[in-house]
Amino acid sequence: MRRIVILAIAAFLAVSNALAEEGVWIRYPGDYEMWLGSDVQSRRIEHGTPCGVFWPEYSHWPQVTFEKEVNLEKPERIRVEACGDAYIQSPGMVFTDAEGYATIPAGNYTIQIRVKNAVKPPALKIGGPTVKTDKSWRVRWCPMESCQVATDENDCRMAYETVEPVKTEPDGKGGLIADFGRESMGILDYVVEGSGSFRIIYAESEEEAKAGTAADVWEEFNIPEENQESSHRTPFAMALRFVRFEVLSGNLKIKSVKLLREYLPIPYRGAFRCNDEEINRIWDVAAYTLHLTTREFFLDGIKRDRWVWSGDTRQSVNMAAYLFADNPVTRRTLTLLGGKDPIGAHVNTILDYTFFWIIAVDEYYMYSGDTEFVKQIWPRVKAYADWSLSRTDKDSFAVGRPGDWVFIDWAPGPMSLHGGAVSFQQVLFAESLRIAAQMAEVAGDEAKAKEYGKKSAELRAKIMPTFWNDERKALMHFKPENGEPAKELTRYANIFGIFLGYFDDAQKEAVVRNVLDNPDVMGIKTPYWQYYELESLCAIGRQETVLKRIKDYWGGMLKLGATSFWEEYDPRVEGVQHYAMYGRPFGKSLCHAWGASPVYLLPRYFLGVKPTKPGWEEYEVRPNLGGLEWMEGTIPTPFGEIRVKVHGNKIEVRSTGGKGTLIYPDGRRETILPQAASQE
Amino acid sequence: MRRIVILAIAAFLAVSNALAEEGVWIRYPGDYEMWLGSDVQSRRIEHGTPCGVFWPEYSHWPQVTFEKEVNLEKPERIRVEACGDAYIQSPGMVFTDAEGYATIPAGNYTIQIRVKNAVKPPALKIGGPTVKTDKSWRVRWCPMESCQVATDENDCRMAYETVEPVKTEPDGKGGLIADFGRESMGILDYVVEGSGSFRIIYAESEEEAKAGTAADVWEEFNIPEENQESSHRTPFAMALRFVRFEVLSGNLKIKSVKLLREYLPIPYRGAFRCNDEEINRIWDVAAYTLHLTTREFFLDGIKRDRWVWSGDTRQSVNMAAYLFADNPVTRRTLTLLGGKDPIGAHVNTILDYTFFWIIAVDEYYMYSGDTEFVKQIWPRVKAYADWSLSRTDKDSFAVGRPGDWVFIDWAPGPMSLHGGAVSFQQVLFAESLRIAAQMAEVAGDEAKAKEYGKKSAELRAKIMPTFWNDERKALMHFKPENGEPAKELTRYANIFGIFLGYFDDAQKEAVVRNVLDNPDVMGIKTPYWQYYELESLCAIGRQETVLKRIKDYWGGMLKLGATSFWEEYDPRVEGVQHYAMYGRPFGKSLCHAWGASPVYLLPRYFLGVKPTKPGWEEYEVRPNLGGLEWMEGTIPTPFGEIRVKVHGNKIEVRSTGGKGTLIYPDGRRETILPQAASQE
Repeated sequence: MRRIVILAIAAFLAVSNALAEEGVWIRYPGDYEMWLGSDVQSRRIEHGTPCGVFWPEYSHWPQVTFEKEVNLEKPERIRVEACGDAYIQSPGMVFTDAEGYATIPAGNYTIQIRVKNAVKPPALKIGGPTVKTDKSWRVRWCPMESCQVATDENDCRMAYETVEPVKTEPDGKGGLIADFGRESMGILDYVVEGSGSFRIIYAESEEEAKAGTAADVWEEFNIPEENQESSHRTPFAMALRFVRFEVLSGNLKIKSVKLLREYLPIPYRGAFRCNDEEINRIWDVAAYTLHLTTREFFLDGIKRDRWVWSGDTRQSVNMAAYLFADNPVTRRTLTLLGGKDPIGAHVNTILDYTFFWIIAVDEYYMYSGDTEFVKQIWPRVKAYADWSLSRTDKDSFAVGRPGDWVFIDWAPGPMSLHGGAVSFQQVLFAESLRIAAQMAEVAGDEAKAKEYGKKSAELRAKIMPTFWNDERKALMHFKPENGEPAKELTRYANIFGIFLGYFDDAQKEAVVRNVLDNPDVMGIKTPYWQYYELESLCAIGRQETVLKRIKDYWGGMLKLGATSFWEEYDPRVEGVQHYAMYGRPFGKSLCHAWGASPVYLLPRYFLGVKPTKPGWEEYEVRPNLGGLEWMEGTIPTPFGEIRVKVHGNKIEVRSTGGKGTLIYPDGRRETILPQAASQE
Repeated sequence: MRRIVILAIAAFLAVSNALAEEGVWIRYPGDYEMWLGSDVQSRRIEHGTPCGVFWPEYSHWPQVTFEKEVNLEKPERIRVEACGDAYIQSPGMVFTDAEGYATIPAGNYTIQIRVKNAVKPPALKIGGPTVKTDKSWRVRWCPMESCQVATDENDCRMAYETVEPVKTEPDGKGGLIADFGRESMGILDYVVEGSGSFRIIYAESEEEAKAGTAADVWEEFNIPEENQESSHRTPFAMALRFVRFEVLSGNLKIKSVKLLREYLPIPYRGAFRCNDEEINRIWDVAAYTLHLTTREFFLDGIKRDRWVWSGDTRQSVNMAAYLFADNPVTRRTLTLLGGKDPIGAHVNTILDYTFFWIIAVDEYYMYSGDTEFVKQIWPRVKAYADWSLSRTDKDSFAVGRPGDWVFIDWAPGPMSLHGGAVSFQQVLFAESLRIAAQMAEVAGDEAKAKEYGKKSAELRAKIMPTFWNDERKALMHFKPENGEPAKELTRYANIFGIFLGYFDDAQKEAVVRNVLDNPDVMGIKTPYWQYYELESLCAIGRQETVLKRIKDYWGGMLKLGATSFWEEYDPRVEGVQHYAMYGRPFGKSLCHAWGASPVYLLPRYFLGVKPTKPGWEEYEVRPNLGGLEWMEGTIPTPFGEIRVKVHGNKIEVRSTGGKGTLIYPDGRRETILPQAASQE
């Protein structure tokens, strides 16, 4: 027996109905992201046990009210489709019939439709002669709230394709190892004979596949009944290049396995080519790495946690801007990280990650010009900025409070754990307050714009006097204590200090010499911080050094057979040691978004293309071959592509929009207008 | 194929395991109530369409961390059961095996176990040689939060019994009407032949059953295939005395129907008997009414919305204290109404209902002595008190802001809608701040105790000078404006003013004469306000008047055939008009909790028994026969029953605990010690 009614999404999506197709699905902003984030981030399976994120998770609002002013000359018959239970709360109480149709009266009034769904984010779609859902509708979760603009962002839909292994090797005990030839993510589709229990090891290296329970990611399954032959799928997509089926009991035999590759269907709009084939290969693998981690959200890596981290996201936002351009993944990720009230912890519990999140929101705005999004997310930026300001120490420095994680980088020892104010955090905090002030202006909050601007300037003014050591000519990691200068010197604040213009020319030169080029100062551990170090070298025109570093570091991974770039790479270790991290033999992720930075560094600092006004309304092209003979590339923007060709002294820029400024190596400037070409 | 693992409640509840049975299920406080409240309150079906509450709904936290200090001499094997995905986050990361067992190391550390469940509230149960879950565990939803004491409150479990109709009448068109003899709530269990669509009308009166779609609560169903005979159940329990099956299409025939009565298995510990059989019958029907509405939560009524309203709850808390004593329904209801952050609206969006909720929390404390609950709910009391204080007008009066509903009673006209400060709201606000100050002391928040105490006193001091009209000798509804005294005189503030001691003797006498006994002042519309009016008459010793009013009003409903008491009763209307409300012919609920107040008024003000210290540690017995010849009753307390017999001048009180004071009609006082009997 079927209960007639009730407005469930599944029942209606398939119905072809001319009226209904006029409206679009709308939601409360952030609801979908909270729900999807919780779902995606619960897929971490470690040693057969699921483990969730250790920071606060929020739910969507289980019930929201959509509303819109209408002015109807005559009554109107509308079709109400909802993800959840829906009813028309005003005018009066209008009930839908069993097919979801309702007739609303003539007049000038606010139609309010309430949708409830405790399990999935409420969504609404109305179709009618004049009344239909679109972005002019508003939504709220409680009667008192000032309405939000409803979002009509589409659901994330993944694409699938079947991939055969390049090699399959039975193990003689019913199990097998298959190699899919390159780093992949997908659902395994396999055929078994008989019954019994078995372990599936999702492995990024052959060594890991053969490591049994010492591998990092595996699950155990059981086929209870005797079967002649049966076909199965793993529960959701996992990262792997190799897969090992290990029979644990029974008379089981794995007959065959295929991979249902799961990926986000998003085109590569950016491109880069040059005369150096190793660099081209690095760009290709970096693009593939970024694409693998660009899914429902920007994930850190696809192997292990598959969680959404703000530090990683900040880099993905910039990399993705040069590969995919403005895209819904960026908006989803920034929205998820912005969370909801009440704030329970820093973003990902990490002090620096709150600041990187604010900076990333602004960078998205710079690439997209999406003021609507800035207005939508502004309350979260304000909430986190105010929260951060409420937790400073007596000197107004940002410090780690109990429960906060002061991460910076995977560096050994006391660098992050020391309780006092850290120079790098202050540089980042001052920058994020400056950014927050700018966003306040976009959102029309003059008071906050003024407040944050003032606090940012005050903090910035204190950083050099507090942390600069004039003997060592560098920003020290900690501030002096009891009149004694701090001993610890690290790269972090100095790298950002160069980039953010903290130093005069003499200071800058000294910092480069004493810190960046000084092998005695602890090196960068991860590609994550390679991004920042190389960026600051580019900022001072050291592209030649950077090109060499890219070839050494990323080329080094390629030489070891990498098909995607890693979470961490240390050229000094050998063999299987490369796969170890976190004290586990296969703890390292071999496909990590922050490993993909060449896809950003090459177009941004070699082709030299960057926006200087939101949405690329204005932009700059300042090419630097860095020792290459020629390079060509495409940079995607909201208005189309910017194409740059640099062959020796010959520079050609074509663009379909925006106002560009081409800056020649000798400093000469030239305006680039749409469709114009400039050359010398 | 079955995926091994993963710690799901369903899989493990049935497993008999000695270790696991040592622990209890624990949760984050409030999580279960938010989830259950959302579920229960979404069962409103109006004209076939579901409609949810119009105030904010909150979700449980999708992920929480349970923790406990342990000190183990040797490693310990524990069994981890969870509602959700669980893993041991510290020490280190300890993984459970496929049966949910894990071995935790020796040492002194805090074990932290994270449980995630987006759909149902996370819960945890640990069994081990020494480590097991109990109320000494703590829980938090984010790393920064100071831990909460975990709750081990059990789930709400309903009971069922099958009831045959007293009469079944086929309608000759395949349908039928059945009468279950009295107001009931349950799931219909029915047998049909053939296929087609039909409407089920859940009716509280025979007229409603026959009213087709003019009835208030009906659903349409469809049996798609041809069946010889098939058996079905309605989706969840609905209120009804009558049910009508109306065949809409097809060759359907309803063969039979039974009711699976659904009720909360909670014993009546209170009792009342007297020489007046009509009063005894009123007590019985009031007890039945309260029991029908005492379920997952205190519901307003069982017919229509079945929602949880604070004003109704405040009365149910007091009524239930005299019928059931301290019980989990009270804690669940108060917790649900307390909501979560951020506050989006007044409780139920109603100004007065925020204040009634605070008062009800304190009344529960008075009846139960449950300081643990007060400490748990204190952050919510503080949040709502602060929020209310932040929304006062320039004179510090509580006023309705846009989106607030100033309800008071179902009274006609501008009484509630006027924007200005209303005297009744100030009386209630001052009282709730006084109560909040008391609770602050129980919770150990000295600063808030002082702040609320001061604000309550200041507000109270302003009420008489502002609202008292010395010509009319009463508190006016509004304050004077532009030097002109307000015209509107209502009972509300005057009723509470008597009860809360606002008047001197001369004023009190005048108020009784000019307002309470004055038929020209608009009368009370609902039993809801009968409760307060009769309570204030009892407070001044007018039990004789009250007894007559009870016999007239509740006796009047009985004479009309009521089997439970109504949402509203107007002796002046006739026939089917009694069932109309909200402009709908059958809009009225015929089983409404606030109709049950005799179950409170009789023991409280006739037997005269009330607690004077939390948990009935001290209490008072001040009998007043009010014209009865004799009365006897039992009042339940945490330590057992207090039994009171009053036959003319002879008063007998027996108690198993607490220190009582018997106050004779002539004012004489006598101490009642446990098991002692006192008589004259």
